[in-house]
Amino acid sequence: MTTDTATPTVPECHIRETGLLPEHVAAFKRHGVLALRGLLDAEELKSVQAAAASLIDDCWRTREKTDVIWTLEPTEPDAAPVRIEYVVDKSRPIARLAGHPLLLDAMEALVGPSLIPTWDSMVFKTTAGAPRLAWHRDGEMYRDAVGVIGSGRVIDAGIYLDPAPEDNCVWAIPGSNYWDDERITRTAERLNASEWDTAGAVPAVMNPGDALLHNILTLHGAPAVKGSQRRVVYFEYRPAELEWQVGPHVPAYVGLKQQVLRSCLDLRRESAPDEEPFAYRPADALRHWEGRPELTTYRFPHEEYWRW
Amino acid sequence: MTTDTATPTVPECHIRETGLLPEHVAAFKRHGVLALRGLLDAEELKSVQAAAASLIDDCWRTREKTDVIWTLEPTEPDAAPVRIEYVVDKSRPIARLAGHPLLLDAMEALVGPSLIPTWDSMVFKTTAGAPRLAWHRDGEMYRDAVGVIGSGRVIDAGIYLDPAPEDNCVWAIPGSNYWDDERITRTAERLNASEWDTAGAVPAVMNPGDALLHNILTLHGAPAVKGSQRRVVYFEYRPAELEWQVGPHVPAYVGLKQQVLRSCLDLRRESAPDEEPFAYRPADALRHWEGRPELTTYRFPHEEYWRW
Repeated sequence: MTTDTATPTVPECHIRETGLLPEHVAAFKRHGVLALRGLLDAEELKSVQAAAASLIDDCWRTREKTDVIWTLEPTEPDAAPVRIEYVVDKSRPIARLAGHPLLLDAMEALVGPSLIPTWDSMVFKTTAGAPRLAWHRDGEMYRDAVGVIGSGRVIDAGIYLDPAPEDNCVWAIPGSNYWDDERITRTAERLNASEWDTAGAVPAVMNPGDALLHNILTLHGAPAVKGSQRRVVYFEYRPAELEWQVGPHVPAYVGLKQQVLRSCLDLRRESAPDEEPFAYRPADALRHWEGRPELTTYRFPHEEYWRW
Repeated sequence: MTTDTATPTVPECHIRETGLLPEHVAAFKRHGVLALRGLLDAEELKSVQAAAASLIDDCWRTREKTDVIWTLEPTEPDAAPVRIEYVVDKSRPIARLAGHPLLLDAMEALVGPSLIPTWDSMVFKTTAGAPRLAWHRDGEMYRDAVGVIGSGRVIDAGIYLDPAPEDNCVWAIPGSNYWDDERITRTAERLNASEWDTAGAVPAVMNPGDALLHNILTLHGAPAVKGSQRRVVYFEYRPAELEWQVGPHVPAYVGLKQQVLRSCLDLRRESAPDEEPFAYRPADALRHWEGRPELTTYRFPHEEYWRW
């Protein structure tokens, strides 16, 4: 009998060779995790790596706290930056990456035609190290979350700029996207009771240029690491109809983030005129960017658009 | 610019020729309606037609009211039956039809791996006629329904046993699956103000053996007709995770209807040993049939399992 546990590894899709096939969609819906291998070509990878290096250098130089998370207060000598928010606004190569047609085609197939980008950030471990990422389910924002998004309508895409080998990668429990809160809490507590426990989990070993998709309900974690650089650009996507009716942001956020997406598509088209662009075609009732003034920023702080 | 209204007809999939392609999935998610052409082969169509004729003959003969809807009290001379509930329990050919692999493969792709069957019925117009089916959205059972199922996770599959030409078919408004309640109500009231108005709608012209899929949120209706027989077997599907956590039935209903589905698959396998069967593989956390006693009926009346 086929069960979730028959998958000892993260299901994967060689996206440039096959595109996203129905079996990849099915695997993602069932297991809550999917690796897109070789999403970035060598040239784009190099450009995004340089942009990432520059953003991280800025952190070290300025010890900035706005939009940057540090392991300790940035004034402390052992402090290291580990996360930067709103990277689409801060970096043109990352804004162009946000218009990547293969990534967006895959997101359209999984999230639906009216996908919008929500969070964008870079999460990284410098060689100064970073602590363990405890086992967790990402911010649960919906009542009846498993019923509403268990099969994977709210998705984090992590685009890897460095290798993530087994001792420095995200681990995930396939199928935990369907678990109720009680089982998630119980399992996370058990796994987090020791420094690093991977019982029931599979490693998401990634190469530079790969992307790891995870359902935000899938239980995942990562071990502490030191002396090894790993940078991941995260884009989260949600269905506009869910954001519009339920949140977590206010309805006005939908149109603004659709404008951001359309601007990223324009930027990408300018820099890659020969590439077949992603065609953004949300449902008629969900075209909320129309008639709005041009954007002057791509940074829309979550707390300023929070519904609750 | 491509918009919903650029689709003047119901999108269609020649299911035996191509299977359900990603573009069919996308069209269904966007428009809320999709025709599967040629789902039944000639032999199965004939067998289900005979079963349908027999069920309708029974109505006329017995004037039964349990599980049968009539245009008038069945004792009145002009009364005609128009709908029979729980047809999977009443007819072996229809139970076998409920195990159809191409239909279930398509449902798995749209509803998700943990699909369960919910409603099963036959809706028909005998030559005695049937009144107009007013413009409506099917029973809305979810708070924030557009956010939860706007892209099409709760689906009615209507399998046609007779031709449905333009003057005797369902019409639907593509994209209305994303409309808010206010717009649905306003539009339905305007269209229902005259005897038959199809402004903004497209006809779902169907041939015997075709299936029409509709998102239960898609606004649809059908004209009154007389002198023309049209019989449609309806199967509705929902994600088990949604039914389990939100309803509308109690959690125990999930396992029972999974047992029904598995029994239908067994019945079909016995009668079509050379056909590649549908592989029912819900998420591990949603295998609620395990350890239950064998079924003695396939009839699970909705009102006995209602959550609210």
